[in-house]
Amino acid sequence: MSKKLSKTKLKCKGFIAAGVSSGIKKGAKKDLALILSEVPCTVAGVFTRNKVRAAPVVNDIKRLKRSKVRGIIVNSGNANACTGASGVADDWAVSIAAEKALDLDKGGMLTASTGVIGVPLPVDKITLALPRLQTALTKDGFADAAEAIMTTDAFPKANSVKGKVGALDVTLLGLAKGAGMIRPDMATMLAFIVTDVNIGRAELKGALRSAVDASFNSICVDNDTSTNDTVLVLANGMAGGMEVTSGGTAIKAFTRLLTELCVKLARMIVEDGEGATKFVEVRVKGALSDKEARKAAKAISESMLVKTAFFGEDPNWGRILAAIGMAGIHLDQEKVDIILNGICVARNGIDTGKEKDAAWAMQEREIVAEVNLKCGKGSAVFWTTDLGHDYVKINSEYRT
Amino acid sequence: MSKKLSKTKLKCKGFIAAGVSSGIKKGAKKDLALILSEVPCTVAGVFTRNKVRAAPVVNDIKRLKRSKVRGIIVNSGNANACTGASGVADDWAVSIAAEKALDLDKGGMLTASTGVIGVPLPVDKITLALPRLQTALTKDGFADAAEAIMTTDAFPKANSVKGKVGALDVTLLGLAKGAGMIRPDMATMLAFIVTDVNIGRAELKGALRSAVDASFNSICVDNDTSTNDTVLVLANGMAGGMEVTSGGTAIKAFTRLLTELCVKLARMIVEDGEGATKFVEVRVKGALSDKEARKAAKAISESMLVKTAFFGEDPNWGRILAAIGMAGIHLDQEKVDIILNGICVARNGIDTGKEKDAAWAMQEREIVAEVNLKCGKGSAVFWTTDLGHDYVKINSEYRT
Repeated sequence: MSKKLSKTKLKCKGFIAAGVSSGIKKGAKKDLALILSEVPCTVAGVFTRNKVRAAPVVNDIKRLKRSKVRGIIVNSGNANACTGASGVADDWAVSIAAEKALDLDKGGMLTASTGVIGVPLPVDKITLALPRLQTALTKDGFADAAEAIMTTDAFPKANSVKGKVGALDVTLLGLAKGAGMIRPDMATMLAFIVTDVNIGRAELKGALRSAVDASFNSICVDNDTSTNDTVLVLANGMAGGMEVTSGGTAIKAFTRLLTELCVKLARMIVEDGEGATKFVEVRVKGALSDKEARKAAKAISESMLVKTAFFGEDPNWGRILAAIGMAGIHLDQEKVDIILNGICVARNGIDTGKEKDAAWAMQEREIVAEVNLKCGKGSAVFWTTDLGHDYVKINSEYRT
Repeated sequence: MSKKLSKTKLKCKGFIAAGVSSGIKKGAKKDLALILSEVPCTVAGVFTRNKVRAAPVVNDIKRLKRSKVRGIIVNSGNANACTGASGVADDWAVSIAAEKALDLDKGGMLTASTGVIGVPLPVDKITLALPRLQTALTKDGFADAAEAIMTTDAFPKANSVKGKVGALDVTLLGLAKGAGMIRPDMATMLAFIVTDVNIGRAELKGALRSAVDASFNSICVDNDTSTNDTVLVLANGMAGGMEVTSGGTAIKAFTRLLTELCVKLARMIVEDGEGATKFVEVRVKGALSDKEARKAAKAISESMLVKTAFFGEDPNWGRILAAIGMAGIHLDQEKVDIILNGICVARNGIDTGKEKDAAWAMQEREIVAEVNLKCGKGSAVFWTTDLGHDYVKINSEYRT
């Protein structure tokens, strides 16, 4: 899979960006990105839950305690993780150098890193590239920036949404990196979102939490959580108008737009699974609670047995049921309905005899797997891939 | 990997066994096994924790409430899981038919099934094969039985240990099926152990729990728990002597022998990973408790990032540290030592610069990964494989 980004679509009022090669990656590949706002931005972030946190994560958490920031500098090729106290100092060195070069206040620049772990960050390469990075800054630079944050990604990931927040037109633009389940590597997931909405700090944080849960936290990327996982959103207020406050329709509208963008970016990450042949949407309803539905959807999405069956276009619903059985939720096996691309393969936990129809329906590239637990009103949606490599071929053909 | 079993080694006083083809599997492959004791046996079992349980598991839990049993009948090719009430009835039909054919008391025969899910058990094929199965019963039949319980296994798994329990010589003989992590399929793990020790019911159950925790529950087979996972141990007392009771040295000796056998069988399951090039022992010490050590060892053993690095013979200790960071245990990142095949690659959470030595040491087929958390006295051992397929090649070479 390969996708070209549209430079003209990727614009947001008052933001400029660039992506250049600093020599961290071999072969003059872009590995250094910068996103900058003309004016100070309200900022919110969500970081890895791993207890082992990379230096830029440790430092960004401190930087976010400031009220406003101006931008983000990101390198790929080196994660600056498991690098101890000198790694933390290296990360400060990068942000301070960038602040000086761009004439920003101290603490105005956030950082992010992705790549190999346990290797000292080549600070000199980054600082030497700063003048070129600065020269390259442009309103059209987001496609280059998206390319510069890639590691094992097969294609750069960026998107934008436009909509109304109150009476005002706003834009949200996002970049992401990360590759689907089937490519276990550094597995870092990074996403950077900029918007011209005028919004308070607490409101932005709340909207981001909600959007991330429904998007980046609802995909099966990998069973690992990286030391570097980071989602940042910067709002510069240049769309004008009154500040969006909590409780009104404006915050709902903004949260909806932010969620829409995050889902688009998260889906691009799922789609970037080398060898994946299917894009799978798992919908669970009828659980005791949304939380229980989420556990079931996650268990299905992560099950190697289920993913192997999707690859084999095998409507092996017993594997889906077994995955739910492991999820630690309330389950009445004799109530469960399972529907694959519209074909009900199990009703009340028993085979319906429609496996042939379902196998035919599963030949589509996109599979929607619906589960109704009939215990309550909880629901959830997850996105995952099949497990589509030659090595699982034998297993997926086991039944035929 | 392929292994031949020694028929002469696989014997236990008072037990006979057989394995034949009943036609459930294609191509006249053995798919029906029987283990029988001359006299009634004390029995203990450990079953899947999946809430979705196959019919033989549901029924065996009932059968185990009887005080004594005579044997186990096992079919491969059909799991009799997700088959509803008729599946439960089918399973009873098999055990009752076997009890009649062998002239046993009602409830004297345990069952187990492994294979595809959601398909009705072909009871007729099994009952038609019973006379041949009975004719084939012999003291040397355990190798055939081991073959008959295979599904995706690359080789049959059986072993025996001999030792002293008190003054008496006892034998423990075990069969197992299940294939390592890298082959996601039905993923059922079955193990059947017979012994001539004379032991009480509660003591046998306690010994089995302890042995299973240190063996089958300490391997990374798969992230799934099958609907059919079962470990059964039958003790017929024919070694003679007084009944082994709790609290003494005899029960300790027996538990040690049972654990030794279970570890041997569990290691065979780990070794049976198609494409796996490494057998990895993960040793964690210095945790706050054994339970926390176990969580860390499990997280390391299951991490796709760690397993990919093992395949690439890449001493990427940052991935090991990151896996521990996800384990939800007390962790002081700046205390952690990591040793790979004797080479200390990280001391106090910092690289020691010995990656080249470690890469060389990791060329061995067996890798011992030791982690010292230096927080307490808890320790644990886990066994896992690398993730050794072409599809991960790109990622494991990412650093080179």
